[in-house]
Amino acid sequence: MTTAAPSVLTLQCPDQPGIVAAVANLIAGTGGNIANADQHTDRESSVFLQRIEIDGPIGWQAFRRGLTGLAERFGLQWALHHPGTRARVAVACSGELHCAADLLNRVELGELDAEVVGLVSDKEVAAPLAARHGVPFVLVTGGLAGGERAAQEAAFAGALDELSADLVVLARYMRILPEPITTAWTGRMINIHHSFLPAFPGARPYHRAHQRGVKLIGATAHYVTAELDAGPIIAQRVVAVTHRDEIDDLVRKGRDVERTTLADAVRLHLEHRVLVWDNRTCVFA
Amino acid sequence: MTTAAPSVLTLQCPDQPGIVAAVANLIAGTGGNIANADQHTDRESSVFLQRIEIDGPIGWQAFRRGLTGLAERFGLQWALHHPGTRARVAVACSGELHCAADLLNRVELGELDAEVVGLVSDKEVAAPLAARHGVPFVLVTGGLAGGERAAQEAAFAGALDELSADLVVLARYMRILPEPITTAWTGRMINIHHSFLPAFPGARPYHRAHQRGVKLIGATAHYVTAELDAGPIIAQRVVAVTHRDEIDDLVRKGRDVERTTLADAVRLHLEHRVLVWDNRTCVFA
Amino acid sequence: MTTAAPSVLTLQCPDQPGIVAAVANLIAGTGGNIANADQHTDRESSVFLQRIEIDGPIGWQAFRRGLTGLAERFGLQWALHHPGTRARVAVACSGELHCAADLLNRVELGELDAEVVGLVSDKEVAAPLAARHGVPFVLVTGGLAGGERAAQEAAFAGALDELSADLVVLARYMRILPEPITTAWTGRMINIHHSFLPAFPGARPYHRAHQRGVKLIGATAHYVTAELDAGPIIAQRVVAVTHRDEIDDLVRKGRDVERTTLADAVRLHLEHRVLVWDNRTCVFA
Amino acid sequence: MTTAAPSVLTLQCPDQPGIVAAVANLIAGTGGNIANADQHTDRESSVFLQRIEIDGPIGWQAFRRGLTGLAERFGLQWALHHPGTRARVAVACSGELHCAADLLNRVELGELDAEVVGLVSDKEVAAPLAARHGVPFVLVTGGLAGGERAAQEAAFAGALDELSADLVVLARYMRILPEPITTAWTGRMINIHHSFLPAFPGARPYHRAHQRGVKLIGATAHYVTAELDAGPIIAQRVVAVTHRDEIDDLVRKGRDVERTTLADAVRLHLEHRVLVWDNRTCVFA
Repeated sequence: MTTAAPSVLTLQCPDQPGIVAAVANLIAGTGGNIANADQHTDRESSVFLQRIEIDGPIGWQAFRRGLTGLAERFGLQWALHHPGTRARVAVACSGELHCAADLLNRVELGELDAEVVGLVSDKEVAAPLAARHGVPFVLVTGGLAGGERAAQEAAFAGALDELSADLVVLARYMRILPEPITTAWTGRMINIHHSFLPAFPGARPYHRAHQRGVKLIGATAHYVTAELDAGPIIAQRVVAVTHRDEIDDLVRKGRDVERTTLADAVRLHLEHRVLVWDNRTCVFA
Repeated sequence: MTTAAPSVLTLQCPDQPGIVAAVANLIAGTGGNIANADQHTDRESSVFLQRIEIDGPIGWQAFRRGLTGLAERFGLQWALHHPGTRARVAVACSGELHCAADLLNRVELGELDAEVVGLVSDKEVAAPLAARHGVPFVLVTGGLAGGERAAQEAAFAGALDELSADLVVLARYMRILPEPITTAWTGRMINIHHSFLPAFPGARPYHRAHQRGVKLIGATAHYVTAELDAGPIIAQRVVAVTHRDEIDDLVRKGRDVERTTLADAVRLHLEHRVLVWDNRTCVFA
Repeated sequence: MTTAAPSVLTLQCPDQPGIVAAVANLIAGTGGNIANADQHTDRESSVFLQRIEIDGPIGWQAFRRGLTGLAERFGLQWALHHPGTRARVAVACSGELHCAADLLNRVELGELDAEVVGLVSDKEVAAPLAARHGVPFVLVTGGLAGGERAAQEAAFAGALDELSADLVVLARYMRILPEPITTAWTGRMINIHHSFLPAFPGARPYHRAHQRGVKLIGATAHYVTAELDAGPIIAQRVVAVTHRDEIDDLVRKGRDVERTTLADAVRLHLEHRVLVWDNRTCVFA
Repeated sequence: MTTAAPSVLTLQCPDQPGIVAAVANLIAGTGGNIANADQHTDRESSVFLQRIEIDGPIGWQAFRRGLTGLAERFGLQWALHHPGTRARVAVACSGELHCAADLLNRVELGELDAEVVGLVSDKEVAAPLAARHGVPFVLVTGGLAGGERAAQEAAFAGALDELSADLVVLARYMRILPEPITTAWTGRMINIHHSFLPAFPGARPYHRAHQRGVKLIGATAHYVTAELDAGPIIAQRVVAVTHRDEIDDLVRKGRDVERTTLADAVRLHLEHRVLVWDNRTCVFA
């Protein structure tokens, strides 16, 4: 039952009659088979989005030519991913290591199909974690304000560039990023925020959740955009809390939610299951 | 943004190349548009299943002719549902009325697009519920054994036939049905069982759950088959319980799970989202 | 195993040594037995809260005298509830009837131990629901602004007073209440808000949730205070949504969450399981 | 707000009047304060169970003497745990490493207050995991039948004894243990089973879940007893699955549920929050 992994085609375009048939015909005509397909039409914005898993044998060159033709005809944006190329992932963290440790662990166990090309942190405490997994560690120190902050941001940007990452995962990296960085990594940088957004964006969400007396806390994995904690949401999870839970308990319960939510989002991204439009995501799970 | 409801095509056949393109071409060729589509290929049994929402204008007669052609070519089974025909639903219950009351309530509120053509029960206590909603009440009394049981079963079967129901919902109807009935209603009779199947099939599941000390209880909505509580599962839900919960609490918590699970399953069925193969369901939610 | 229902004592006071022993001794000394007890010390505010179910035979008069003594000694606030007095509940709704219908249904089925003394609404569409359950219907019309608004608010306040309600449940009553009303009913008025507060307070939460692209929607039952949607939270629930869910789907999924969350909160309140301090609740579930 | 951790007293006895007062008086009389208390009376079996967190200063010797007195008077079983003694935990696994890796990770991150004294496995593949965390690795090889099996079981039992473990965690250790081992470790050996028990006990639960077409899969952490997968349940979790999920997907989704369920159970045990009676658990969470 285990077969060669399929190739993945993702596409989006203005909704219009004939698009499904055109793509299906192209696949059938170049010798492929649709192993799995999922699609969505957003009626409000009249956008059509699709993800297709294609089993070869297929003439990929002819297929790409055909797609280029469809792109012109339908205003199609597409991406084609073949199996076997492992994504290069840079993980960034600060002093809280649970999310980064969980990601490294999952890669080690083969749960995430990626290569962690570096662990970037503004805290030295993260170094042993990188060492334990044989991952290069990059320390980017610097202050929180003025020139020191700019230097730190430049170091961070430089580290990511140098790592030639396909994806950057902010695994509780507790720095607000400047717009050049968020722009450079649009759609390729995932953050975990430790609240159920849009509740409690910004700092100290567990403290605020405790003070408000909520009965559920959550975590949100989203693509990073220029506006803090406002990017397209990929995954969210919550867990019940009670009056018994003090802030320490929220932090503890939240760690499990953060880990699993972030790991979900990273996996979904790596499997090319997330399409973005209008600051929202289509997740073909 | 509110438009005419689409027609729904469901189909299944042995998996084979070209099927998606053939159906998409047929739709495009007869003037329709795919408003939404979902499909699944079960690799183990090599079955292809699809549900398509089609926006007209379409030449339905030509479309049906085309489908007949595809049926021959691909070994296709299909069903086509146009909006505007409200399903006739018979609801059956015994002494516990919460599921039946919930269904009648939902139909009353317009949440379920169906007409309840009758409430059938072996208990008179259900009569006021039917009266409150202006639904015909059918009492099918009789004993639990021997000739009385057979008479009761015949009365039940007769009631369902007379109601010309499209769907029968066993909303805590606490009788085991004989095979002629389960066969007659294959794929058109939904039962709610008050456990997380396959745990605790049969009688008194909450008592057994309590004795076993489980930390979650559940409910399962499934199509009825000849074997008790073993038919294709449509929906399942669970709720957490603790050592504090005595059997009465399990019953109380369970009622909410039963209600919502059953309502989910009925809605999914009425919207033609459930396809069955190999005693399993494909739920295009 | 079914025994007479116990009496319920709830109390709160500044945390201090000896309080548990003092209360336990009082119960034991007046012939009672602790059937169940739950307590909580909030370390931040040094508040002690407790809920005790007491099985008689007990000398209630001596017990109350003893409590009065403890109240002086420990700065104790307490309430004692004996079984057999059914709470008088007023339900208020506007045009969306699902929450009100669910509550009436639950009372009818014996799931909530209360008497619904009136259904109050600013919409005539709710009248048949009240009639169906034999509950008095009170229509409070009036405009949304100026003198008409004031008249409507006065009518609403008058209706609640006249019903001598112990508890008012705002079951999707879509009017913002003026402070005199929220003050008069402090701790005795429960609202259901159709979002996971503090996200999306105020109007049209499902629209905003859809626009933000959240992956979970929720509902929050809380005591009403002067500030809109900011009172002590009693219960919250969420349900997963996907890109497939349009606003109508959020509304549909949300209805189930609203219903069950509100019913939970009402039950918890009626069973004297909710204690309030610092705008937060202690829920002894 | 961070104070010295409290001591924890757990006790159980036949339910009887006066027990709560007697214990509270003993605590107050020896200079302690009840920081937190939780109790449960099981009405069916008339058992009283309690967990109390006690803030000193307290005369512990006098307190223990007092408890001994209460033990005689009330038929009390009790245990008293002071902070500062870190539990010795042995972790056992086979070829699937995710649960063991997660536990080691949590201990490393300070999430579980324990010392992992050894990783015991019947597979060499687990050795690098132990090395990565600086934990002694014990390989216990041997066959699945006859003398080889007996030798393997003896080696396993010997390894656990030698490690002087307070708690043994079977983190996907895929061997059925003989009764001498399960008896020796009663109440001190926790297993994770990869199904929602009592559904799918024994081998290959995900395969059977897939075949049955369930819509939720789960994991169960329980104390090990002589009967396979039938011991007192500490924690259970489930996750939704759909027709899209093939067995590999169930395995993947299940891993997250297994990890978190097992970690929950281990933490609850280490914090002395789990009391057992009648093959059920009282979890004072």
